[in-house]
Amino acid sequence: MTPEELRNIVDRAHYFGLLQKNPDGQLVHAPFSLTPYQLPASLISQLQIHTQWSSLLFWKVAQNCDFLREILEPTAKVDEFVRFLLSLIPNEKRQDQQLLINRNDFLFERKENGDLQPLQVELNTISASFAHLSERITTFHQQLQQENILKVAPLSHDAIAGFAVGIKKTIEELGWQYAALLMLVQPKERNWFDQMGLFAALSQRGVKVVRATLAEVHDRGKLKNGDLWVGPQRIGVVYFRAGYSPGDLPDEESRSARRMMEASSAVLVPEASMQLAGTKKIQQVLVGSGVLSQFVPESVGEQLKAYFAMMFGLEEEVEGRTAREFLAENAEQYVLKPQREGGGNNVYGAEIRDFLTSLPTNEDRAWIAMKRIEAETTESLLVAQEQAQYHQCISELGIFGLLRAQSGDLRINMPVGHLVRTKASNVNEGGVVAGYAGLNSLISKD
Amino acid sequence: MTPEELRNIVDRAHYFGLLQKNPDGQLVHAPFSLTPYQLPASLISQLQIHTQWSSLLFWKVAQNCDFLREILEPTAKVDEFVRFLLSLIPNEKRQDQQLLINRNDFLFERKENGDLQPLQVELNTISASFAHLSERITTFHQQLQQENILKVAPLSHDAIAGFAVGIKKTIEELGWQYAALLMLVQPKERNWFDQMGLFAALSQRGVKVVRATLAEVHDRGKLKNGDLWVGPQRIGVVYFRAGYSPGDLPDEESRSARRMMEASSAVLVPEASMQLAGTKKIQQVLVGSGVLSQFVPESVGEQLKAYFAMMFGLEEEVEGRTAREFLAENAEQYVLKPQREGGGNNVYGAEIRDFLTSLPTNEDRAWIAMKRIEAETTESLLVAQEQAQYHQCISELGIFGLLRAQSGDLRINMPVGHLVRTKASNVNEGGVVAGYAGLNSLISKD
Repeated sequence: MTPEELRNIVDRAHYFGLLQKNPDGQLVHAPFSLTPYQLPASLISQLQIHTQWSSLLFWKVAQNCDFLREILEPTAKVDEFVRFLLSLIPNEKRQDQQLLINRNDFLFERKENGDLQPLQVELNTISASFAHLSERITTFHQQLQQENILKVAPLSHDAIAGFAVGIKKTIEELGWQYAALLMLVQPKERNWFDQMGLFAALSQRGVKVVRATLAEVHDRGKLKNGDLWVGPQRIGVVYFRAGYSPGDLPDEESRSARRMMEASSAVLVPEASMQLAGTKKIQQVLVGSGVLSQFVPESVGEQLKAYFAMMFGLEEEVEGRTAREFLAENAEQYVLKPQREGGGNNVYGAEIRDFLTSLPTNEDRAWIAMKRIEAETTESLLVAQEQAQYHQCISELGIFGLLRAQSGDLRINMPVGHLVRTKASNVNEGGVVAGYAGLNSLISKD
Repeated sequence: MTPEELRNIVDRAHYFGLLQKNPDGQLVHAPFSLTPYQLPASLISQLQIHTQWSSLLFWKVAQNCDFLREILEPTAKVDEFVRFLLSLIPNEKRQDQQLLINRNDFLFERKENGDLQPLQVELNTISASFAHLSERITTFHQQLQQENILKVAPLSHDAIAGFAVGIKKTIEELGWQYAALLMLVQPKERNWFDQMGLFAALSQRGVKVVRATLAEVHDRGKLKNGDLWVGPQRIGVVYFRAGYSPGDLPDEESRSARRMMEASSAVLVPEASMQLAGTKKIQQVLVGSGVLSQFVPESVGEQLKAYFAMMFGLEEEVEGRTAREFLAENAEQYVLKPQREGGGNNVYGAEIRDFLTSLPTNEDRAWIAMKRIEAETTESLLVAQEQAQYHQCISELGIFGLLRAQSGDLRINMPVGHLVRTKASNVNEGGVVAGYAGLNSLISKD
């Protein structure tokens, strides 16, 4: 590719809104791939169905507070963040409605028979991001295909419209004359353009949006007759784009704000119980035991398990040894993950040995070991900071899901678009904003 | 406005695609106003009708090559650019179709009785720009209104879709199996995001777009059986976003490329004759003489004249004196304009005296004096380079027009959106890309 051709492509990325701020606050393009990721159409459909079943499963788990407490209380003793979230679960339901916006992430291993085996990396039940930027890269790649720069047009999707319709419907069902969405954000958010996509889609549909950090909710928010108000706005739905990691709740003010929201009549996306259902510990217990059939039909449970990577807790026995002994021998094949979402906190491969040596035994419950997925690599052209380079890459596919329930009945459970992130295979973390991975589009092969 | 509020607004401007490059090549927001321009709904309708009549008039003038030659040959003697354009008019029509994309610019004077008097600044028959960015600022202001940052929602418009449909139709009517649009651009274009709007709208409609400078057309273009090819693409329509000023045609190569296009079977937007019809000299003759009725019904002619500012040529007599004597006395009330479009070449007010002293008499024909419009000023909040400031401002409204003709019959003649540029009243030039003026939206008052 000539510098002129690259310049043209980067200009198009800017035009199509593939934007973020760099750490200096300068407007730049988000890293992207110029090699769309291809998957068989039948597999994409399977993953969409899988995501609906996953949403159903975790929604049902979230309803079962006794189960959550039973599994997570030992973890809560050593994980202060889990302890805080558990303390938020109310004794009585405040709200008759639930809304879940999630993203189910998959990697793909090539099996010996040549088939692709999808493996679920995690179900993000809070702050599932990149729906807007994923639409932007799709439109951008469609343009490049029109110009014959790419060969095949990627699969369209409209995740943001799905989210916006779900939120609008939820607010309408409250039956209040006027209620706004509160979008809870981190201070100095660098992925603001992605959030703005949903903001604008809601504005276009006449839904008022208030954007605030937890500190601002603490300062400007209050409860009136059990309803949440932020400044002059009564809040119908709170959509969390913050609060998924302990660093988001650094002080008593932010925790107090979160408590106020959980105690209010607002529909939380997600409620604390849904956020807890998404912890690794719960996923591990669901994968490893026979409890799945409590929540979904047995045949569905088998189907779900087939996509779950092998997981175990550090307090367990694995193949006749303690988990710590097993991991010391097989560290390279595993990842250690804490309970929180958001990436950036995992321990990989050989580093697990040193990490375990320094980890007190009583903190075992805070961590989960997961079989490292040996994702197939493909050569991809990645563009970061206006430079293009070929890398051996792995691609992670996220399927966005929307679930709405009322009076315990499921009203909506549907897949609403996807996200592909492609990263050099020698990079462990997957953060697009941090510059580790490039946004990508999806090609559906027959 | 707090720095935080301004930051939020600038972020939204970026999100909604109000982008340009600064001279260092850095991605920045285009300057914009936060005070939408208000006009009565009935006046906006009148200007849309006026634009249709203007399009019709200049299309008819362009068909009358004898008239163009008669008026412009004296000018051509002293204006090398006009001479070149006149030399392009073919003796025989190459193409049965014509397509015109224009923009009719108006300023507004407040009359003593309180009414607003619109005055036509010019009809741009070539490279009428900002249709896309004007849509972007409209959507951006609509978002700000949803957030109660602005009080009233601006008038929507869809100029780019209008242009794209007109171009697609023109290509289809050629009856060729396959033909592309050639978008002729300047090297190192800074207003590329605006052009990309049309590019993307055409791509979405399945119209292939080739983007090239005149130098590139010279290198890669050729005629085959009278058809224009650029590389492997047969060209159905050429849309000029360059070629309106002598600087765009600096050498024999670029002129040769333009000649090749005029000699080809491609539909040119605009043909040389249409570009010449847009010269100030033609406008001045149409305003000043009785020839208007040759082209449009007398009642329409009167209506058109009512919006034309008073103009005269330097070779004329004005109020019993030579034009030069008259201007020396009344310089402050006039603007001197050369034949070319694009701004940046005008001489204003007192500077006219010095300019005329240095201008040889035989170059009189190259210039037109126009009564300086005393546009009403309103206080507006302008944002440039991420800084907000109040200014006393004047606003210029452009109405985009689309005209398509076939075999001499008018097929389409319609207004397709608008552009508002608002600038501090102490600034003479109106260039948004140059940073002199801010993009604005239009509010229609009842």
